[in-house]
Amino acid sequence: MASASERKPWDSSNLRKYCLNFEEIPRLPFDDPRVDELISSNPVIIEGSNLVKSATDKWNLEYIERHMGVTTNTVYLSRNHKFKYFDDKKIQSRTNPRGVEFSPPMRKVEMKVEEFMKKLREWKRGDERLYMQQSLTAAVGPNIVQDFVGFNWKWINAKQKTHCWGKLTSNLLYVSMEGNVTPCHYDEQENFFAQVYGYKRCILFSPDQFQCMYPYPVHHPHDRQSMVDLERPDHTRFPRFKDAKGVEAVIGPGDVLYIPIYWWHHIESLMRLGPTITINFWYKAGPTTIEYPLKDHQKVSIMRNIEKMLLEVLQDPREVGPLLRNMVLGRFDENPLA
Amino acid sequence: MASASERKPWDSSNLRKYCLNFEEIPRLPFDDPRVDELISSNPVIIEGSNLVKSATDKWNLEYIERHMGVTTNTVYLSRNHKFKYFDDKKIQSRTNPRGVEFSPPMRKVEMKVEEFMKKLREWKRGDERLYMQQSLTAAVGPNIVQDFVGFNWKWINAKQKTHCWGKLTSNLLYVSMEGNVTPCHYDEQENFFAQVYGYKRCILFSPDQFQCMYPYPVHHPHDRQSMVDLERPDHTRFPRFKDAKGVEAVIGPGDVLYIPIYWWHHIESLMRLGPTITINFWYKAGPTTIEYPLKDHQKVSIMRNIEKMLLEVLQDPREVGPLLRNMVLGRFDENPLA
Ligand SMILES: [Zn+2]
Ligand SMILES: [Zn+2]
Repeated sequence: MASASERKPWDSSNLRKYCLNFEEIPRLPFDDPRVDELISSNPVIIEGSNLVKSATDKWNLEYIERHMGVTTNTVYLSRNHKFKYFDDKKIQSRTNPRGVEFSPPMRKVEMKVEEFMKKLREWKRGDERLYMQQSLTAAVGPNIVQDFVGFNWKWINAKQKTHCWGKLTSNLLYVSMEGNVTPCHYDEQENFFAQVYGYKRCILFSPDQFQCMYPYPVHHPHDRQSMVDLERPDHTRFPRFKDAKGVEAVIGPGDVLYIPIYWWHHIESLMRLGPTITINFWYKAGPTTIEYPLKDHQKVSIMRNIEKMLLEVLQDPREVGPLLRNMVLGRFDENPLA
Repeated sequence: MASASERKPWDSSNLRKYCLNFEEIPRLPFDDPRVDELISSNPVIIEGSNLVKSATDKWNLEYIERHMGVTTNTVYLSRNHKFKYFDDKKIQSRTNPRGVEFSPPMRKVEMKVEEFMKKLREWKRGDERLYMQQSLTAAVGPNIVQDFVGFNWKWINAKQKTHCWGKLTSNLLYVSMEGNVTPCHYDEQENFFAQVYGYKRCILFSPDQFQCMYPYPVHHPHDRQSMVDLERPDHTRFPRFKDAKGVEAVIGPGDVLYIPIYWWHHIESLMRLGPTITINFWYKAGPTTIEYPLKDHQKVSIMRNIEKMLLEVLQDPREVGPLLRNMVLGRFDENPLA
């Protein structure tokens, strides 16, 4: 089978413009020994693994509508092209008075796949954009389940074992309109991101870029998201963002992108190139060995724990920042102590 | 007995000059009911308690030399008038490679009291200044022990009980040259600071002034000390110091200053007014009740624990500051999040 790069149907006009330059994510055949060298510490695009071949061979919007039509799925609706995830458990409400005051940037609704597809077909400029993000469970129907069973589990289970990952926690099915963007964030799991249909651009930043990425506080509904708008970075508030070093790639059907745990990723369905379908494979992190020097993602985890502990003891998210500021300002400045 | 304020032998020329103004610490007779109201949340000078009357009646340099002459005591020697405490366990050394590189600002030596007194008598400008700081134990000799037994334990034990303090951990005997300064720091214990001989000026700041006081990192040998030099504050590095709100008093024989736990204190033996003798009574904090809003000293304790935890997990004091900075800069700024 021809790889995505050989029959490249896109050019730079399908990509959104940002003021950063990116290196290319390496792209390797599944049986190249360098794949395993890269995994765990770096992203890599793996070709020819046939991980989701049973899906790439058949899946498109019609197939999904036909076989998942009656099931109810999670669909996000956004007034613009950005789908910035938020954790509603962290929003202030009557039942959660200690939460953060927050107006969600998108709506989350449950709808039948047929309703979703109808909205896609009838969509016109000015309408809310749509992005389906649904967990693949037995409820998705027999045909989809059969395709799922036909994934190349042998290959991915071997990868899981080789890299000592924990268990597979979920497979999410993403069905996106062209041009949709999932803004830059990191996840706390290992991720094989398998492209089924259409083309997605993925921009990744290592956990060592934490200081350039400015994540929201852990207690904020946008926890794990960057506060920086990649399209219009506020260089006054986020001065180090301009130094962020990222890597990028466009993935197409059959490509599997390995997104290492704690790596930042921005995902965009290419513009004017039709809808996209992706399946991810999320794995728990392997057992951590505390070896020095610590890895950058371990430091991110330490910072997260401090923020969680502070919220727990202070009981008020508005007190976390002032306490941390008092601890740092004038005390832990760039210049070493005399 | 006349109180210190009634036969005040000092004026402002005996006080060092600083660029801050201070309110007066309240001064109350021991049987005034407001004493107990103030204790636990505020400093107060207590008159007439007779806490160390057996000492104030007799102790002076000659008496101490005669009765403690052969015992060996801890004496600090400083090239200037400041005696800035440091914790030698936190200094980098062959046996402590993870410690902080540090040149001690004073020497700590053990010497007989008679040697200390001889040095005091023969002292001339340009010599190292001396400050004896010795724990009162049974080893100090029978006469001193007898005076110690004669302290007003009934009164102070009642205070300990009323305010639910933990056990008495130590009594330190301070014998100071005139003009010596103990720079601003806080202790993690409750303190009754009983003046026996001569006059000391005490400047205190509440734990809510943390952000103005800029303590060294917890892992630094000067932990619990302010980085700000009260005599020459660096307003560029420590811009909020100029807003520090302090209280002060001069204490004389018979006065007992209550220094609440975590309160900052700067102590100076008055200039040109002879040596001073003080005894402190350090008590463990009482059991903490977690009630909201938290008290400022509890927040200080939380910050200390975060710094300790970070040092433990990072294993390198030089990494504590960068991690905290990354956690705060651009993420927890003054302006609330949108
Ligand atoms: Zn993600
Ligand atoms: Zn002290």
